[in-house]
This record gives sequence, structure tokens and C-alpha cells, in this order.
Amino acid sequence: MTIVDPAAGSCPVLLPESERVLLGHGSGGRLSAELISEVLLPGLGPAAPGGPLEDAALVTVGGCELLLSTDAYVVDPLFFPGGDIGALAVHGTVNDLAMRAGLPVALTVAYVVEEGLPLTDLRRVAASVGAAAAAAGVPVVTGDTKVVGRGAADRLFVITAGLGRRLPGAAPTAAGARPGDVVLLSGPIGCHGVTVLSTREGLGFESDVASDSKPLHRLVADMIAAGGTGVHALRDPTRGGLAAAVNEIAAASGVGVELVEAALPVPEPVRAACEMLGIDPAYVANEGCLVAFVAPERADAVLTAMRARPEGAAAVRIGAVTDGGPVLVRTMVGARRVLDLPLGEQLPRIC
Amino acid sequence: MTIVDPAAGSCPVLLPESERVLLGHGSGGRLSAELISEVLLPGLGPAAPGGPLEDAALVTVGGCELLLSTDAYVVDPLFFPGGDIGALAVHGTVNDLAMRAGLPVALTVAYVVEEGLPLTDLRRVAASVGAAAAAAGVPVVTGDTKVVGRGAADRLFVITAGLGRRLPGAAPTAAGARPGDVVLLSGPIGCHGVTVLSTREGLGFESDVASDSKPLHRLVADMIAAGGTGVHALRDPTRGGLAAAVNEIAAASGVGVELVEAALPVPEPVRAACEMLGIDPAYVANEGCLVAFVAPERADAVLTAMRARPEGAAAVRIGAVTDGGPVLVRTMVGARRVLDLPLGEQLPRIC
Repeated sequence: MTIVDPAAGSCPVLLPESERVLLGHGSGGRLSAELISEVLLPGLGPAAPGGPLEDAALVTVGGCELLLSTDAYVVDPLFFPGGDIGALAVHGTVNDLAMRAGLPVALTVAYVVEEGLPLTDLRRVAASVGAAAAAAGVPVVTGDTKVVGRGAADRLFVITAGLGRRLPGAAPTAAGARPGDVVLLSGPIGCHGVTVLSTREGLGFESDVASDSKPLHRLVADMIAAGGTGVHALRDPTRGGLAAAVNEIAAASGVGVELVEAALPVPEPVRAACEMLGIDPAYVANEGCLVAFVAPERADAVLTAMRARPEGAAAVRIGAVTDGGPVLVRTMVGARRVLDLPLGEQLPRIC
Repeated sequence: MTIVDPAAGSCPVLLPESERVLLGHGSGGRLSAELISEVLLPGLGPAAPGGPLEDAALVTVGGCELLLSTDAYVVDPLFFPGGDIGALAVHGTVNDLAMRAGLPVALTVAYVVEEGLPLTDLRRVAASVGAAAAAAGVPVVTGDTKVVGRGAADRLFVITAGLGRRLPGAAPTAAGARPGDVVLLSGPIGCHGVTVLSTREGLGFESDVASDSKPLHRLVADMIAAGGTGVHALRDPTRGGLAAAVNEIAAASGVGVELVEAALPVPEPVRAACEMLGIDPAYVANEGCLVAFVAPERADAVLTAMRARPEGAAAVRIGAVTDGGPVLVRTMVGARRVLDLPLGEQLPRIC
């Protein structure tokens, strides 16, 4: 419900529209953050993770520094140019580990299947999980499958978890960005979200663009070899896009960021699709690029290392970390606008 | 489709009804086994787990012996006497680790939420996850939440993964049962499945019976302290019940098993419900008991250790491992009947 406080005049205090879960709660934006902080984490009580919310959690067992991560995939459609729900699930979890300098050691995969799904679809997804895991050099060691009746799920959901070991000499964390850091982006933005949306809705852009879904752990290993502890923070801009990723790092680190609009690599079909849909490419999900916050004295070396790999061939410098304040974008005409955390859902079921 | 081979006379060769996923593929029975071996594992190719299918996979990282497991929970209803989907998800993953002598170190939790789910329900489940994890002494270190539109999921699915460390001096495995082993059961069977089904369908038994959902890792630790390497195989009889668990261990170990019907602890409300529904309690899912295959010379010590804990207070000896052949049950009148792996789904969405 919308609560109106009469003492506050006519300005309503916006609460969730009702005491129900909204699509926007899954957006990776402000509503997602609220759901996590107000509903999900309090339930965990003293067991709740402390500190900033990271892509993967650090767990120490018998002296081994391990990383653990999980992701649920509900993308619609299951298959799209450049990928499918199976490869996406593998890449997403491998990348969450990589954002904390983790190399993947083992994956688990769980399927929730709707009764009536063609076995050919399930076979194709399972083969894609296997191929993506093999290409990333990580075994799928265990899994689970549940079947629910028709109408109780939309075809297929894939949920992966990943175990990683930490690369020595690196400790990137969401809270690690420092004023003066250079912000690097490994490749063009918007391809995944536009591809999935265009395929689902038949918008026609899907013939000109493909998902960027790919594993980034080898890129991260090379970046850390080049930048060491100068690689302060890493994040893959998935749900909520670049805007959410940069805002989350800025908030967790207590810093501001200024991005340069002219430097943002937006492929032409993505730009055209976003103009037609009235959305900003900075809010569109990616599944194969990362944003890095690097100490200025190591930035050139890290950028060179990124460009030496196919995943980072188009890497660019997109901005710098400031002392504080909001995330700003310097536009082509020299003005500054705020790039806020998105509120809710622009593109549902994109991953 | 049902394929009839005219040369074989009138006896139809049963294949899956169509090339589509059936509810029975999620049953934990023969159809599940077929789906895993024919559709899901081949996709993994060379990355597929070798050897017997275990409740949790052993992964070695930097000299540390770790266990990894995952489970998807789609139980309907979300709340039932004795538990809910959140506690069930924690207990199930803790128990899968325990079946390989793993103590839980960290859990991940992923939620797939249907738009419109009351936030009170989600809060209640999240609190139950937290309480169950705290009671089991394991932190939930990371998670993920996805929201899908109305009708694209049935309220809420919860998917957990668990990381465990192996108890020293023990290596129970599904392939470990040996002829002569004593078969022990830690508590009464059928409570979970009957409770969930009765609550969902309003059969009335739910006032007399509650789910046995609980963590078993401390029970396993005490069993291994008492039985050491004499604890050959452990399994929690979840989907497919005791019949599936015993058949899986027998198949993986290449042995037979003879159970004594009179020794099987079936509570009166479970017996009444099963009679009404025309199902065998040995096929009904449990979430808080385990079946153990123990070397005969250690069986008494292990049974004593089990009975000393609340989770194992009602532990009993239910049979013995034979040289080979099917899993048999010696009935009250002295006859022997085969206790086969169930074919398909008797009780859908029980976990």
C-alpha cells in the first residue's frame, strides 16, 4: 500500500505498492536492495553475512581461502543469440567467483523443470552446461533436479553454485575502491539485455546483436598478474547494468565516481534498441564484461593486460573515482548528470 | 508415446509417455534415474562426475578434503506441521553433506519468487532459513533472488548449496556396502511425506503427524566416532523413501539387501494414511532420518551411539546386506517380496 502521512501534506511516502513481492524486487536495483536488506538478511539474524554484499563469499577452511557463490537463472527465452540459460548459469557463477579473484574449482547445478518441457530442450541445456563448464575448465560435480506440474514453473530454471580458490596476491572487494582509482570496463555494454529482450519480444535487433555471455576468470587472472593489489574492486555489471555495478561499488566503498559518457562503448544496435525502448544502455544487463577500480599507477598495465585477451580486447578507461557524492556521468556536451541506482524492473527475466 | 513392438506380442515396451519431462521424472525413482543418466549426465561429457552418484561430491582444494552439495526445494505447501520450505532446504543440504561424513561449513541460498507472493511469507521463510542454519551451526554466506511474473512459478522455490569439511577417519560412500553389513535406520519413516501430502490435500492426518525435518550431521559425527571406517554407507531416504535409498546403495555397491518388515518403524498415522492412499510407507519421503550400512562388528556400538542422541533415539536394526540380488523384504508371515526402486511419482512436490 502507499502510505500517506497527513502531517506531511500531499506528498506520499512511497513504500512498496503492497506488501507483496513485485517484479521490480528482482531487478538488481533499489527495490532488490530493499528486499535483501529489509526481508531476506534480517531473517538470517546473527548468521547474516557482515560487511559489503559481495558477488562471492570468502570462506576459510583448514587454512584454505575459498570462495562460494550461487545464482538462480530464470531467463526467458531459454535460448537466444550468443547463449542459453545453461551457459549463462555457468558463466554467471564463474564470473561471480572471478570478481573476488577466485578461480573456479567446482560447480553444482540444480534444475527446476516444468512438466511437459521437451526433453530435447533439457538435453540441449544440459549439454550447454557441460560445454560451458569444460570451456571454463571447471567440473560440474553434483546436481539436483525437481519437476513441478504444468503451470507451476515457466519451462526451466537453472541454479548454479560455485566453489573457487583465491588467486594469491589479490583481494578485490566491493568496499575496495579509493579516490583517484581509474575505472576500467572490459568490453561493450548492453548486448546481453538487448539480445534477450529483442528475442523474447521479436523486436528484430536480435539479428544484429548477440549476448556477451562468457567466462571472465582468465581475464581477471591476467589483470591481477599485471596489477596485483592495485586491483581494488571488480564487478560484472549484470542485472541493473553498469549503473547498478558502479553505484554498488561506490556505496560499499564510500566514494563517488565520475564516468565519461563519450568513453562508454555502446554498440550501434544496442544504442538503436535502447532509443526505441526509451532506456539507458547503462542500465542494461551484461553477462561477459566487468568493471574494475584500479590504483592509478597500475591502470595502464592492467589495461594493457586486458587488451591482450580476447575477452578484454575492447577494454577502455571510462572514468575515475572521486572523494564522494553520487555517481555522475559527464555528458558529451560537458554537463554532469546523476547515474542513479535503478529503482525497479526495466527488463524482467533477463538472466 | 508407448511403443509397441509387434514381434514382442502384446506386451508394450514402456518408454517415457512422450519426449517430454513427466512429473515422475522428479520422483527420485526409476524415471529420475533415467533422466539423470540419459539426459543430464551425457550433457556434461568428460566433466561428468565419475563413479556412483553420491549425496555430496568430494572436492580436494590445496590439500583440504571438501564436500559440495546442492538441492532445489519446490515443496507445496510452503508451510506444514514440523517445518517449511526454508528449514527443509537447510536441513536437506546439511544432511546431504552429512551422508558423506561432512560437517557443514557454509551454505548458499537462492530464491525464485513469484510476483505477488506476500512479503510476510518470504519473511517467514527467510527467518526459518536463518533459524535452521543457526541451529545447525552453519552460516549462510551468500545468496541470490530472482522474481518471475505471476504464473511463471508457484509462489516460491528455495535452492541451497552447501560446503562441508570431511570428518577425519571416515569415508562412507554409496558404493561402500558389503555383504554381512547390518542395516540401521535412525528413526520412524513416512512422517514428512504424509504430513506434506495431508496438509496440501486436507486429508486430516496432519493433526496427528509432523514432518521429521531436522539436521543429522551431529548424529553422523557420533556414529563415526563409534564406528569409524566400519560405517560403510549412509543415505537419507528423501524422495522415493527408504525403498529408493536402499536400492541406490545396493546398486552402487553391487550387493543385495534383506529388510525385515516387522522391524520397520511406521507410526500409526503414517500407516493409516498409507493404507487409505494405497501406498507403501517404504516409498514415502523422509527429511530427518538416515539409513546406515555398518560392518557387523561395529553395528552395536553405532546403534548405541545413535540411540544416545535425540535424532536417533528410535534407531533400529532393519536388515542385513546379502551377496546380491534384489532388495527383499521379509514379511510378517515369513514370505519375501521384492522392494523395487519406485518407477515414478507417487507424491509430487513433497520436498
